[in-house]
Amino acid sequence: MAYTWISDGGITTPRGYRASGVKARIKGDKGDVALVVSSPPATVAAVFTTNRIQGATVGLCRDRLAAGRPAAAIVVNSGCANACTGAQGKADAQRMAELTGNAVGASPDRVWVCSTGTIGVPLPMDKIEKGIALAAGALSETGGGAAARAIMTTDTVSKSRAVTFEIAGRSITVGGMAKGAGMIEPHMATMLAFLTTDAAVERAALGNCLRRAVDASFNRISVDGDQSCNDTVLLLANGAAGHPLLTEGDADWPAFEDAVCGVCRELALDIVRDGEGATKLVTVRIVGADDAADAERAVRAVSRSLLVKTSWFGGDPNWGRVIDAVGYSGARIEEALVTIDYDGVRAFEAGVPSAAAGLRALEAVLRQQAFTLTVDLHLGNACAVMYTCDCSEEYVRINSEYMT
Amino acid sequence: MAYTWISDGGITTPRGYRASGVKARIKGDKGDVALVVSSPPATVAAVFTTNRIQGATVGLCRDRLAAGRPAAAIVVNSGCANACTGAQGKADAQRMAELTGNAVGASPDRVWVCSTGTIGVPLPMDKIEKGIALAAGALSETGGGAAARAIMTTDTVSKSRAVTFEIAGRSITVGGMAKGAGMIEPHMATMLAFLTTDAAVERAALGNCLRRAVDASFNRISVDGDQSCNDTVLLLANGAAGHPLLTEGDADWPAFEDAVCGVCRELALDIVRDGEGATKLVTVRIVGADDAADAERAVRAVSRSLLVKTSWFGGDPNWGRVIDAVGYSGARIEEALVTIDYDGVRAFEAGVPSAAAGLRALEAVLRQQAFTLTVDLHLGNACAVMYTCDCSEEYVRINSEYMT
Repeated sequence: MAYTWISDGGITTPRGYRASGVKARIKGDKGDVALVVSSPPATVAAVFTTNRIQGATVGLCRDRLAAGRPAAAIVVNSGCANACTGAQGKADAQRMAELTGNAVGASPDRVWVCSTGTIGVPLPMDKIEKGIALAAGALSETGGGAAARAIMTTDTVSKSRAVTFEIAGRSITVGGMAKGAGMIEPHMATMLAFLTTDAAVERAALGNCLRRAVDASFNRISVDGDQSCNDTVLLLANGAAGHPLLTEGDADWPAFEDAVCGVCRELALDIVRDGEGATKLVTVRIVGADDAADAERAVRAVSRSLLVKTSWFGGDPNWGRVIDAVGYSGARIEEALVTIDYDGVRAFEAGVPSAAAGLRALEAVLRQQAFTLTVDLHLGNACAVMYTCDCSEEYVRINSEYMT
Repeated sequence: MAYTWISDGGITTPRGYRASGVKARIKGDKGDVALVVSSPPATVAAVFTTNRIQGATVGLCRDRLAAGRPAAAIVVNSGCANACTGAQGKADAQRMAELTGNAVGASPDRVWVCSTGTIGVPLPMDKIEKGIALAAGALSETGGGAAARAIMTTDTVSKSRAVTFEIAGRSITVGGMAKGAGMIEPHMATMLAFLTTDAAVERAALGNCLRRAVDASFNRISVDGDQSCNDTVLLLANGAAGHPLLTEGDADWPAFEDAVCGVCRELALDIVRDGEGATKLVTVRIVGADDAADAERAVRAVSRSLLVKTSWFGGDPNWGRVIDAVGYSGARIEEALVTIDYDGVRAFEAGVPSAAAGLRALEAVLRQQAFTLTVDLHLGNACAVMYTCDCSEEYVRINSEYMT
């Protein structure tokens, strides 16, 4: 790891970015419109939800990505997902781009738009219009924190991160912000993340880098197994650091991709730590699987099992529910070969529980705010990891509140 | 439907069956050993869990099924699943068959054995031995209720059903009992069901009948999406009604299969109604899917979604979470074609929420203890149904209690 964390860093830490977060009264007296502006305009990489139901702004961002033009600004509202809103929703998303473009002096097709919040409700365009004007007036090079707060929904804390490293004697910065706490906010509009860098990066390489970083971070977390229709991750690279254009295969490439992966992973873990009602961050590792598909099946089954997650909440080293989940995952498993460890403390091997002497040690692991559960199938060499959290009564309370 | 429900009917309602349920102190002061004896011995059909981790008694029952001999008795204990117990577990299961065979005067290979309860703990064989002796002494033709109580774990009510119908002027009875409330009891040993009939049925036909009945009942319910390693359904047919041997294709066959399906479905619904912490029984129907696989994916995604289930608990007609779950299920879906109804009240169509006028009507549906949610994809003719329940804070409380 060749990068250094910047304390209180965020999306305006890299050079050439200004941001703001303002209250447009879409969801009461909290920030709900965020604006990020890049000067010069930035090359963009993007990853979207794979849900077949997608919000209007996801469609707009996909069009921008296909067009391939640099981005001047990103505008984000929270409190309303603009999903399942039909033709009106598409027109409203386009109108948000126009209003923002006019306010910051950019062509609307260089403005990216994201929404998160309740679905099936039209955007309150009068409030959005005032919010965008307010946000444009509030832009600053220290506005990253306000922007991160304005994209929050059920999040209890805002999530900003930044790292710095060097390429050819020049310092490069990668910053980011994210929102997400359940896989959902009131209805389902859930995870958004925005990354900025002052590096100059070739467009296709930037896209490959982001896909790999998202696969190893945001695609490795699970709060409740539900997947939203608005999930979007954007990475802007504006080249303000002034070094030669970077691409895959360059000697400096690994340092850049490491930094992007580091910011993505930490923001992803921030989301799990802030999981609705969560009290514990759990890293689930499957090792020794027959093949990668089996490792993936097993790690997802364990990470999504409600019985496993409620037992973590209860501080219970309940390996029985873990092996049960692996058993129904579809992965090949031979009971007599499996070992299960909690932070290195053996709980199960050779088909039976490990010596009762270890129970106190297991309980001590479960009392921690974070621990690693390792299931070794001892069948092959494939492995997979997920970052997840426990499930508490508070999760049910939050999500059973009437929303419609 | 050519059969009639028998009030307070159960596994001893058909002729030729005796049963008992006694307290062996395996799990405190509740019934925990059940015994069912068939005279004459009965042809058996069986369906087992597909989990790759399977309890010792599942292995024993599979051996009995392969051998194909009539069954004289079933012995069941609750409080200990005898799963993940290695070679000792297999020996203990075999010993239960021997003890029971000796007690009721039958060969051990005609005794079927089931266990449900905590996993990874050896059977307390001293208690089991006393329990079997006690149960053999308590056998009676009215013991079905006591047996149904003795197989309970986190169940709050026992589950017994029976129906009667006629074949060639003779009355035939099909009875049954089941246990299950989460997909689990302390750890995971979860759903068991036992059916008895005095019909005389050809063995292969009996197996086909049970597989179809289970597919339409126990395989159509979901409480929390976890699947146990001890799930077992047995159907005994002892021919005590004295009619000619029945097989598929006979004129009377549909009446028999209907009766078995009816008992299985009602026992399955009893399990969902008694779902841990559940307050509502919800029938989820996907219609108009492209093909059967898509219908299945969609109905399982909706029925398992924690966000959907918590919204039901909150009385919220939150169709957004429903369409979101269909969206990530992998089923083909075109947003503009989808309609969503709650007990026939339209919530969503043409890509947007239905008129707000219907909201009060939707809320009234959600206040009921049971309702049907129908998602019509309007793409084809395939359909699928699941019976499920809501998820409450009580579910988390029950399952986060320390068990290990």
